[in-house]
Amino acid sequence: MANPDGGTLAVYVDRMRRAQVELQRQKIDLLLLGPSADLYYLTGFKAHLSERLNLLVLPREGDASMIVPVLEAPLVADRGDLLNIHAWEETQAPADLVSQFAGDVRGKRVAVGDQLWSVFLLRLQEAMPGASWCPATPVMRVLRMIKDGREIELLHEAGRRTDDAWQEFITLGIAGQTEAQAIERLHGLMKARGLEGGWGICASGPNSASPHHHTGDRIIQTGDAVVFDFGGTLEGYFSDVTRTLHVGPPGEEFRRVYDIVLSANQAMLDAVQPGVPCEQLDEAARDLIAREGYGAAFLHRVGHGLGLEVHEEPYLVGGNALPLAAGMVFSDEPGIYLEGRFGVRIEDAVLCTDTGGERLNEATRELTVVS
Amino acid sequence: MANPDGGTLAVYVDRMRRAQVELQRQKIDLLLLGPSADLYYLTGFKAHLSERLNLLVLPREGDASMIVPVLEAPLVADRGDLLNIHAWEETQAPADLVSQFAGDVRGKRVAVGDQLWSVFLLRLQEAMPGASWCPATPVMRVLRMIKDGREIELLHEAGRRTDDAWQEFITLGIAGQTEAQAIERLHGLMKARGLEGGWGICASGPNSASPHHHTGDRIIQTGDAVVFDFGGTLEGYFSDVTRTLHVGPPGEEFRRVYDIVLSANQAMLDAVQPGVPCEQLDEAARDLIAREGYGAAFLHRVGHGLGLEVHEEPYLVGGNALPLAAGMVFSDEPGIYLEGRFGVRIEDAVLCTDTGGERLNEATRELTVVS
Repeated sequence: MANPDGGTLAVYVDRMRRAQVELQRQKIDLLLLGPSADLYYLTGFKAHLSERLNLLVLPREGDASMIVPVLEAPLVADRGDLLNIHAWEETQAPADLVSQFAGDVRGKRVAVGDQLWSVFLLRLQEAMPGASWCPATPVMRVLRMIKDGREIELLHEAGRRTDDAWQEFITLGIAGQTEAQAIERLHGLMKARGLEGGWGICASGPNSASPHHHTGDRIIQTGDAVVFDFGGTLEGYFSDVTRTLHVGPPGEEFRRVYDIVLSANQAMLDAVQPGVPCEQLDEAARDLIAREGYGAAFLHRVGHGLGLEVHEEPYLVGGNALPLAAGMVFSDEPGIYLEGRFGVRIEDAVLCTDTGGERLNEATRELTVVS
Repeated sequence: MANPDGGTLAVYVDRMRRAQVELQRQKIDLLLLGPSADLYYLTGFKAHLSERLNLLVLPREGDASMIVPVLEAPLVADRGDLLNIHAWEETQAPADLVSQFAGDVRGKRVAVGDQLWSVFLLRLQEAMPGASWCPATPVMRVLRMIKDGREIELLHEAGRRTDDAWQEFITLGIAGQTEAQAIERLHGLMKARGLEGGWGICASGPNSASPHHHTGDRIIQTGDAVVFDFGGTLEGYFSDVTRTLHVGPPGEEFRRVYDIVLSANQAMLDAVQPGVPCEQLDEAARDLIAREGYGAAFLHRVGHGLGLEVHEEPYLVGGNALPLAAGMVFSDEPGIYLEGRFGVRIEDAVLCTDTGGERLNEATRELTVVS
């Protein structure tokens, strides 16, 4: 590679080749990816997500092409050894350009990236009639689900820094702050540890019973359960942790629910083994919670893959028979939500190793009472 | 409306009704919108964008339905008067649920939101065979392009606060900072003025010739042209301003290019009138730049609509014959980019009124030299 960044480019050359092997295996003729973690994973190119089409065209055999708007062509110029770059002018129709590179696709199978906008897919379907269209998930997940050594290192380090931010956070009081203020402080602590793109949910009091609550202006009060679901990225790789605090001494039911969720988190971890179907991890946590009488209050799947996206394959959900494999990283996040009252969720990132599950988070899971 | 927020809900009831009128006029049977500015515009619901389907199902006549993941149902509970809410469980297939509400769509026209992920569109196409699928743009833009009084007020106020942040920013030196540090400081100034979600590009020296440069670690130096393209939101409405500074005294060609771009910005503004085709605004700026010999260096369209998104309809680009109308708000942003050397872009937000164009930005456009 002539590229000064040759060492890194080699990673993408290898990933692209593995994608082609997978296209071959799955009898797919063409892979089309817009700006997404999929594209970044294969090429290292952070394409701009907008109404202007950026698209990777990867045939089962032969060279990859990248269709880019002319004004964004400089952003990908350093990937010339990896991709044939074709810039389209503002008055051109990029779908026609894609169609040219794809050739005649009648009777062929074309896989499109999950997150490509529908407006582009509809134009492509029009410009490339007669193809059979399918999601790229089954191809891309084969590659992305199994993390390599460097990816695991980054996920682990992102987890450690997030833990460290949390351990400082819980020494500070939160009563009297709004949810938004509490999250902002937590973001500051993550940023100070080199994590980028801090994100998070703070759900206090009755809001904690809403798993994806929109953090707002409610003032955190003594007597509240408070769910914090948060993380940041390190070189693009996410941390994702949830802890539930109590402001002032908790009542008996909160203690009981907390213990059940903690046991479910452990039960899920204990079930991790290569070869075990994803849904079995969900069952491990769900059965325990159901036995304790809270089955209907565990509203969501037990977890999701974690990597370049905060939610990615594999999904640990009923009905998913996909077997676990060493190198997968996913969340372990059972929860119990009692509407109008409180919720508890405890979440760690877990690596599936050859011998079982290994947590990538160690922020305290003990019931923590704050002021 | 029983809802305590009834005054606001009435806005959405009206918008939804107008969307149905438009479906009628365009002979579209069904509108499907995922998490997006389109959805927010129609319902006020900030749905979570993820692998779990959130979808508005709006038939040409009758009630709207909202399909939501069960764990996100609490987020939309306050819209019960506006929408029939249907929560799907983690192990259900939401596309089947959509198909139920849509009924038999064979031979019908179904419009889907531009930004719905392809993975959902492909599942919907499978679950609802025989329909003719089209983008929702022609429906949604009719509504969203024409801003009402409140929207114009918010866009104007967002512009004023952004101007104000800029006027302070240019009193501070930037040489010696990285691009990322300069942008961070500018974000801080916008945040201090109540703007949320500050975003921006800082492109210095030769990077300024790349219109969508990724802000990075290059250190800004004396002799650099520096393009800042930036903004934030006020109640969801965007500002979008570009100014080009020079660090230390500029050379003759920079001065000349700056003057040409400034004149092109003015020429575009002068061309704004209801009824004028969008492409004519692009021509007004482009012809001027071409006459001065820099036609090939104006790499992009002259502008784009501005509102709940930083890029939205109408697009001011060659080939777009759509006539301007009073109430449209869009950017006016000609630029000249000399590869390896420097670039200049000057951008304001402009409102089309009954009598012509009115700028929503007044940050100084005079050539500004900083240290």
